[in-house]
Amino acid sequence: MQWVKLLGGLVGAAALLGLGIILGHFAIPKGAEPPAPSVSFAQDLDLEILETVMGQLDASRIRENLRELSREPHLASSPRDEALVQLLLQRWRDPQSGLDSAEASAYEVLLSFPSQEQPNRVAIVGPTGDILFSCRQSEENLTGEQGGPDVVPPYAAYAPSGTPQAVNAAKFKVAGVLVYTDPADINDGRSLPNETFPHSWHLPPSGVERGSYYEYFGDPLTPYLPANPSSFRLDPDTVSGFPPIPIQPIGFQDAKVLLCNLQGNSAPDAWQGALGCDYKLGPGFHPDSVFTGSQVNVSVYNRLELRNSSNVLGFIRGAVEPDRYVLYGNHRDSWVHGAVDPSSGTAVLLELSRVLGTLLKKGTWRPRRSVVFASWGAEEFGLIGSTEFTEEFFSKLQERTVAYINVDISVFANATLRAQGTPPVQSVVFSAAKQIPSPGPGSLSIYDNWIRYFNRSSPVYGLVPSLGSLGAGSDYAPFIHFLGISSMDIAYTYDRSKTSARIYPTYHTAFDTFGYVDKFVDPGFRSHQAVAQMAGSVLLRLSDSLFLPLNVSDYTETLQSFLQAAQQYFGALLEQHSISLGPLVTAVEKFEEAAAALSQHISVLQKDTLDPLQVRMLNDQLMLLERTFLNPRAFPEERYYSHVLWAPRTGSVATFPGLANAYFRAMKAGAGSAAWAEVHRQLSIVVAALEGAAATLRPVVNL
Amino acid sequence: MQWVKLLGGLVGAAALLGLGIILGHFAIPKGAEPPAPSVSFAQDLDLEILETVMGQLDASRIRENLRELSREPHLASSPRDEALVQLLLQRWRDPQSGLDSAEASAYEVLLSFPSQEQPNRVAIVGPTGDILFSCRQSEENLTGEQGGPDVVPPYAAYAPSGTPQAVNAAKFKVAGVLVYTDPADINDGRSLPNETFPHSWHLPPSGVERGSYYEYFGDPLTPYLPANPSSFRLDPDTVSGFPPIPIQPIGFQDAKVLLCNLQGNSAPDAWQGALGCDYKLGPGFHPDSVFTGSQVNVSVYNRLELRNSSNVLGFIRGAVEPDRYVLYGNHRDSWVHGAVDPSSGTAVLLELSRVLGTLLKKGTWRPRRSVVFASWGAEEFGLIGSTEFTEEFFSKLQERTVAYINVDISVFANATLRAQGTPPVQSVVFSAAKQIPSPGPGSLSIYDNWIRYFNRSSPVYGLVPSLGSLGAGSDYAPFIHFLGISSMDIAYTYDRSKTSARIYPTYHTAFDTFGYVDKFVDPGFRSHQAVAQMAGSVLLRLSDSLFLPLNVSDYTETLQSFLQAAQQYFGALLEQHSISLGPLVTAVEKFEEAAAALSQHISVLQKDTLDPLQVRMLNDQLMLLERTFLNPRAFPEERYYSHVLWAPRTGSVATFPGLANAYFRAMKAGAGSAAWAEVHRQLSIVVAALEGAAATLRPVVNL
Repeated sequence: MQWVKLLGGLVGAAALLGLGIILGHFAIPKGAEPPAPSVSFAQDLDLEILETVMGQLDASRIRENLRELSREPHLASSPRDEALVQLLLQRWRDPQSGLDSAEASAYEVLLSFPSQEQPNRVAIVGPTGDILFSCRQSEENLTGEQGGPDVVPPYAAYAPSGTPQAVNAAKFKVAGVLVYTDPADINDGRSLPNETFPHSWHLPPSGVERGSYYEYFGDPLTPYLPANPSSFRLDPDTVSGFPPIPIQPIGFQDAKVLLCNLQGNSAPDAWQGALGCDYKLGPGFHPDSVFTGSQVNVSVYNRLELRNSSNVLGFIRGAVEPDRYVLYGNHRDSWVHGAVDPSSGTAVLLELSRVLGTLLKKGTWRPRRSVVFASWGAEEFGLIGSTEFTEEFFSKLQERTVAYINVDISVFANATLRAQGTPPVQSVVFSAAKQIPSPGPGSLSIYDNWIRYFNRSSPVYGLVPSLGSLGAGSDYAPFIHFLGISSMDIAYTYDRSKTSARIYPTYHTAFDTFGYVDKFVDPGFRSHQAVAQMAGSVLLRLSDSLFLPLNVSDYTETLQSFLQAAQQYFGALLEQHSISLGPLVTAVEKFEEAAAALSQHISVLQKDTLDPLQVRMLNDQLMLLERTFLNPRAFPEERYYSHVLWAPRTGSVATFPGLANAYFRAMKAGAGSAAWAEVHRQLSIVVAALEGAAATLRPVVNL
Repeated sequence: MQWVKLLGGLVGAAALLGLGIILGHFAIPKGAEPPAPSVSFAQDLDLEILETVMGQLDASRIRENLRELSREPHLASSPRDEALVQLLLQRWRDPQSGLDSAEASAYEVLLSFPSQEQPNRVAIVGPTGDILFSCRQSEENLTGEQGGPDVVPPYAAYAPSGTPQAVNAAKFKVAGVLVYTDPADINDGRSLPNETFPHSWHLPPSGVERGSYYEYFGDPLTPYLPANPSSFRLDPDTVSGFPPIPIQPIGFQDAKVLLCNLQGNSAPDAWQGALGCDYKLGPGFHPDSVFTGSQVNVSVYNRLELRNSSNVLGFIRGAVEPDRYVLYGNHRDSWVHGAVDPSSGTAVLLELSRVLGTLLKKGTWRPRRSVVFASWGAEEFGLIGSTEFTEEFFSKLQERTVAYINVDISVFANATLRAQGTPPVQSVVFSAAKQIPSPGPGSLSIYDNWIRYFNRSSPVYGLVPSLGSLGAGSDYAPFIHFLGISSMDIAYTYDRSKTSARIYPTYHTAFDTFGYVDKFVDPGFRSHQAVAQMAGSVLLRLSDSLFLPLNVSDYTETLQSFLQAAQQYFGALLEQHSISLGPLVTAVEKFEEAAAALSQHISVLQKDTLDPLQVRMLNDQLMLLERTFLNPRAFPEERYYSHVLWAPRTGSVATFPGLANAYFRAMKAGAGSAAWAEVHRQLSIVVAALEGAAATLRPVVNL
């Protein structure tokens, strides 16, 4: 996630060119055969095993995992990143607590790094060429961890190199961009050294948020193809999706010097921040400032490099249905030490795989379905490892994957669960959350605690916790958008009444360290443990339940609400253009009916009289529902996005994205425009998808 | 299939403009619950049932079916076409010999018909405007069947209306096209009335071949969407794929008048035919001819009409795996009586469904998997009914369909079997063919007879009958190209040493009648019976075998031969452009290894020790292999074609189509062209598909 405020527009006679906010297209948030138990077709979730797993997930082991994982910076493809590959392999191949097998495999992908020889530089240059001020080129070494040679200097990955400094041609002809994080957005206003890390969890004045500025995801040179060494690669000079101009992130300490000396009109209220001055729009420095008549010089020397980046996969063979996969993954690479992002997730992953591996090696347990653990490479650069994996194994994954569980940053903060996912996973997340105690004081379940922070009124269930929808902020994106696999992302997060910070303050900086987590984010690691229990419970329910705990009926609420929004906001104008929402109403009704009948049918089945193929057939209907919403031809201009319900959507109406996007384009184009034909086409695309989905949910012997 | 010779270029001062051959983009050739037996997971093909079915398929019943089906013209969407829908429903709902259920459903599709008020007209018009000669507007009523009101006059469907007659602008600026079938191509040179039908199977001089001239397939107004009434429809005026200029087909009797009076240079040898004169290129009529100074006037009054066209589906529920479908289909619509095309196939379909339905209703048999019989509408206009069906049920069909069996024209002639299909169906076709006696004299099996007519030397098996590959000539096209379902087409056909006719002579004319079939094509209907036995045996093997009789290893030969062709013909130049075929070699090897291992694994399994889910998993690997070759983004400009091995291919090198097409484009573009990058990209696409396919064939617990 690139939630960054841009100190934008550079360059020019005296020229800060603009001030803007870029919301990134996607956010990179943060986010040996053992003895086999006897096989029974009817093998179902064993609540004792579930209890055992819950009980064995150990907060102190998660803490030790995190200490080791975040001991050194482990930028994608760095030596330490590769050392962690070996650590994962060693854990997953451990004879006492490992999995059935584990492998690492590398892709050759295009990454972007700052030059070591020529550091990126931001300076104010006086009229005679003398440097009046220079921004820091690295963060202050506050804990002894910010000074190492492996701390990558702040940079904007994939921003091109260049040294803009000139008269700017026109108000909006931005030649370069400076990005900083305002204390108003990240620190609840705090900005002084003694009120920031290491004295609190707030971002120190020198802290700089790194990030990728590539517009799409996946390896930039091999869209839709796995980035194997022999794969066809685009010419980097012609790749679309890279920023067109140099970008450099700086700390708010330096941003203050630049921003508080600007002249010109005041920036809009929403753009004002906590640097202690009135933000002006420029152009140029204030005549009273020592910088009057100066220019800002930005020198970016980023370099594109083909690098090997590894995924690590660990496998537990299913006892009954080995060809059904439950995937659980997180990325491994960080920008610097990455204690929160992503090691808080990896520490949980390792603890969960240890507990399950131990039961496996002891012969106590083997899941009904196969379980695949994944440690993805190069997520920070654009979900690269996971995307290449989905490209390489497209067919196999699409045919066999039950669901994908993503735990990237496991703990943003200690207040409450936050879960995102597609509707079919709501029920399994709720079931898990109801049975796990909340880590805070008191005796609430995670569910009962969660509902206090995020809730909504469901027409079917009444007040329930609110499951968020999935964007493209972490490695679930290729699974849901490209493969149509039901996915979810699980974490512990903030009490929003206590902080308005965009994200935890040291996000993507050199201050995201073990000490930071240990002291400020989750002392005692109880929230980490809670997330491990949540993820573990969800995983076991998916891997072991006789019937998949995917409630396809829960899609109906989404469809109804999308439909109502379409009717309410688009209905009148659509009617004017002779486009009826009637077929959509019918399609949603058909879906609702088929989904309800299937759920009802499953709920009344007597488990002991079932034959294995009956179970398999019904589970296939549940598993494959999400796939039926894929249409690779629906949005050709949106790379990878094929899910007709979750593709990117413009506008604020929460409805079918293809319809909404076409509608707003047609609105702009005006009446009589051919763009209204595209609105009708997009409507027909989603109607066909819903009708097709309903057809897969009906009894398989229906014509 | 539009194998037609064009008497082309019309119009102009004195102007026949050209003579050409159009090879159509695709050819439209011509071609209540009973008692349930007890269910066992291990239910396998029952050879006794198979024998029973073979024995009950009755030649005389096929003959009676054909008589009824071809009694009247049944052009798509005509009243008689709808009456046949009712006939099919009645048969399939028969309490004694019907199926479990049957339904008809209509799509609203764009068809093209000649005007009844203004007949299409071709005439030679003298300098003063008087009509010197008119082509026939209908075929001669030779058997009393050519004169009825339901015989659609000859026309070229989807050719626009227009009345071209003018000075032609330039040699190749054709303003209209006349099409005729030369006796050299269709009649082995015969052209006299007394040597043609009803005196022989040859085409009478007045016979005219109708056909569709739409470039793609499916309903022209709703590409990728089912043509439901509410679906978005393109504006017919902007649809691509319709001919740009008027076209009219005529008989060779009329073509002779036009062609034998031309002046100008002689046409090339390959363009000469059997009309008894030297074919000239024009422009203009010969000065010695009575037509000198005259023009040809073509008046086409075709009209586009939205019509309801029905598919009929009949269903037999599978006893063990009802969610696995074996599809068997043929189109129902004809151009006129359509005794050969398509009723010879429908007559077989009805007989097979009767025999199976009878066993079903008696409680003697129920297939392991579900069987779906289909009677498609509007195939002649461009595979419309089948394509709309695949669009409507895309997900359901792709998830569950084992294979699609197409029997369109069942008997072209009496000599030999002709089968087309993708490699996995070769083995099941061979197995069936070996056990069915050839209909001719002697005691050969269909297989042993077949190998005498069409054979090839297989590196694996030695001399075997040659299974043809599938183009887009009948309703299998959307199943193989759009859905990636293993498909086949089965028929009896010619002794090529006895005729060089492009196709049976009365193809798409008003002379394709019951009497024609009964007297000339298959007196006694033994070839029809043989095709019924072949199709029935293949269907039963697919629906009832414990392991699907799809031999995935047989794809290896195709891949090897495609690879060798690529190396031989493209290798040197690719190397010059630094494109290595090495990764393709590796990918083919990986496929070969994985396929062989899977086949070997299945062959040594002890059927009695298997559990039902093991069988299901292996069968899923076999069933879904064909799907792994689909890449909907590989050929965006080729509508529906997504199969990376069978998409349309330019050039004569039998190899991977994407690679070949890109290669020839790059050749034309010349060295240094960016088109070579596309060659490399297409190579990577097929490599990724093969690697992905291999991954699905490996043991499901492999990472």
